[in-house]
Amino acid sequence: MTHWTIDKARKLDAHDPLAPKRAFFEIPEGVIYLDGNSLGVLPTSVPDRVQRVVQDEWGKGLIRSWNDANWMSLPSCVGARIARLIGAAPGSVVAADSTSVNLFKMVVAARRLRPGRSKILTETGNFPTDIYVLQGISDLLGAGTTVEKLTRSGPGSEHVLDALDQDTAVLCLTHVDFRTGTFHDMAAVTAKAHEVGALVVWDLAHSAGALPVDMTATGADFAVGCGYKYLNGGPGAPAFLYVAPQHQNQIQPPLSGWMGHAKPFDFGEDYTPAPGVARNLCGTPVVLGLSILDEALKVFGDVDMLDVRAKSMAMGDMFIELVEARLAGHGFTLVSPREGRLRGSQVSFASADGYAIVQALIERGVIGDFRAPNIMRFGFTPLYLSYEDIYRAVEALEGIMDSGVWRDEKYSHRNAVT
Amino acid sequence: MTHWTIDKARKLDAHDPLAPKRAFFEIPEGVIYLDGNSLGVLPTSVPDRVQRVVQDEWGKGLIRSWNDANWMSLPSCVGARIARLIGAAPGSVVAADSTSVNLFKMVVAARRLRPGRSKILTETGNFPTDIYVLQGISDLLGAGTTVEKLTRSGPGSEHVLDALDQDTAVLCLTHVDFRTGTFHDMAAVTAKAHEVGALVVWDLAHSAGALPVDMTATGADFAVGCGYKYLNGGPGAPAFLYVAPQHQNQIQPPLSGWMGHAKPFDFGEDYTPAPGVARNLCGTPVVLGLSILDEALKVFGDVDMLDVRAKSMAMGDMFIELVEARLAGHGFTLVSPREGRLRGSQVSFASADGYAIVQALIERGVIGDFRAPNIMRFGFTPLYLSYEDIYRAVEALEGIMDSGVWRDEKYSHRNAVT
Repeated sequence: MTHWTIDKARKLDAHDPLAPKRAFFEIPEGVIYLDGNSLGVLPTSVPDRVQRVVQDEWGKGLIRSWNDANWMSLPSCVGARIARLIGAAPGSVVAADSTSVNLFKMVVAARRLRPGRSKILTETGNFPTDIYVLQGISDLLGAGTTVEKLTRSGPGSEHVLDALDQDTAVLCLTHVDFRTGTFHDMAAVTAKAHEVGALVVWDLAHSAGALPVDMTATGADFAVGCGYKYLNGGPGAPAFLYVAPQHQNQIQPPLSGWMGHAKPFDFGEDYTPAPGVARNLCGTPVVLGLSILDEALKVFGDVDMLDVRAKSMAMGDMFIELVEARLAGHGFTLVSPREGRLRGSQVSFASADGYAIVQALIERGVIGDFRAPNIMRFGFTPLYLSYEDIYRAVEALEGIMDSGVWRDEKYSHRNAVT
Repeated sequence: MTHWTIDKARKLDAHDPLAPKRAFFEIPEGVIYLDGNSLGVLPTSVPDRVQRVVQDEWGKGLIRSWNDANWMSLPSCVGARIARLIGAAPGSVVAADSTSVNLFKMVVAARRLRPGRSKILTETGNFPTDIYVLQGISDLLGAGTTVEKLTRSGPGSEHVLDALDQDTAVLCLTHVDFRTGTFHDMAAVTAKAHEVGALVVWDLAHSAGALPVDMTATGADFAVGCGYKYLNGGPGAPAFLYVAPQHQNQIQPPLSGWMGHAKPFDFGEDYTPAPGVARNLCGTPVVLGLSILDEALKVFGDVDMLDVRAKSMAMGDMFIELVEARLAGHGFTLVSPREGRLRGSQVSFASADGYAIVQALIERGVIGDFRAPNIMRFGFTPLYLSYEDIYRAVEALEGIMDSGVWRDEKYSHRNAVT
């Protein structure tokens, strides 16, 4: 049994300080979107901004817009908006390239600050592209650089804390686990890493815009993050990177392109890194993608991340209670932390039939996603979801399970991407 | 004196087989655009495509569009359109990332195929970001990898041919010089490089879509190129890369992200490169940028690059004749090859007052650009320029020089970007 009713959900919506934000997003008719942790929805003001950039800035302004429309400053302007969300000092974030490419830049830069050490530590549950990029770095830099993958031994970060030693050059972790939503205590892990002289690179893909993080207070060294999840920058949006002020002028960027040069338009023959975080830029700014991300981030302008966090935890708690009460006996196992304060902005249940169930849900307009091998993942984006959405989503799940419709073989056909 | 008249220019336009292509582009009122070699103009069909991608594919389809709208195949579909323009075998080009990032990937991959050698050769006149990226690679890989910059000694490629030796791992050249438009004989240079066992990485930034190139016939090993110049993909458009079929499964990508994995959605713990050129992808595809580039490339669908080349040479010849006839005595020195067959799709004149003159021209709607230290650069894009444009452009230049208006101090104020 559960005390949840549709009326109770609606009452919470009526008192939700973030409820007005829903009007800033285009939610398709008939859709309950629990996948903002994979691709955020379209902010309402984006189409106009896009047309302005395409038809006026590009179409009419042409090459003149590099100056007149401030295209050149987009990486740092967008970076400044993100800095506010992740507790980063002004001038320590730029938006550019993909998360994978930025991770390469940051890990190599960090590794070069610790030349006498050999190990890059990560964990088996890290997002695959992060592990792959680290393996690529190890292969590239040769025998002196090894990657060690640690396996989680409990709900906390003990497996990481125990492995940190004098030979650890870099620790590279995703803050919030993409499968389970478990997260590391950023301050404690960073402090322990610094104690043994290691540097930490955080992947904020499932943190930025989802829960409060504080680069400055936690003493983080480097971070990267994604523009198309909770930041709503659209499919393949530019990613971002953060470099702590004390490292900014110490690091040597491995991807030393002209946009990271101190004076790119002098067209000099030798690379001289720009001062500050800008040296981590490489090629020409992705003007359209950065403009969309810039526009999308405006929605966060007056948002208090503590409000986001409170609503996210409440929604997750509600979802767990409802699923466990109404879907008992269907073999769903909660794989996310039960306690909201230990969980990112998602709830995952394991089920051997997870793939088909998620497809059947998607066909009914309740969009979550499936992550191999058996995880049904539901993301909570407090800016555009209501408590009623959560209630309706579980109702839909109940309908699918009780009717057995998910057993239709069409739902087990695997797509390229889920 | 010159035999050019406005009537003669119009007569050429009337018989120009490419003249109908102009209607596929948005040329701003009052603008003669001689800067398509820096940023191509907006193709007419792009705004609709953009709105479809933003409002329907992203806005309504959301995460489902990775499958339903074929987002995942954009890098290879766009690559296939580019392959046709550069004489590349099917399945040997992908569009992704920036030119600088792709150059890093290709040069490192090539360098790793020649482990016993130490030298990466390039030239002092190469585009700065290419040189900077090479310097970054040398710093990253350590003492065993050096960069040697060769200085042009004449109109041909002798300085390069003479330097190639048994210790050369990789030769990295931009095909068409961005300042002067001089270009290398790709087949001859590649053949000589192969003779000594070196590999060649070509930067096609000023070639793709501007003049016929043939990756297969010239035996090119690797290439990269730009999406926002002659291909008209918009500011910061995705770039592309080419890998010759025989190298595709031999190379080890240094940026080993999930999109280059053999099975990215298995979310496995170890990197296994995808077969073929796809292993050179890294992060999530830039859906919007790729969609625009895809749309822009449709204009080239029925274009014969030999027609483009013929018109480009004719326009360049006409421009040189007109400038030399009408602007004699203003101290302009032709720095591009006089012979059309030796010149890319641009004409450059040196002038100590080049910066101010170009600014004065831009203010009058004739948009060329300035490249340090003293180059006035005029690009010819046969798909959307007319012979009458060329005539009018020189008329405008004449007006500026004869009136002396360029001496106004407002034109010597330097912008961030020119």
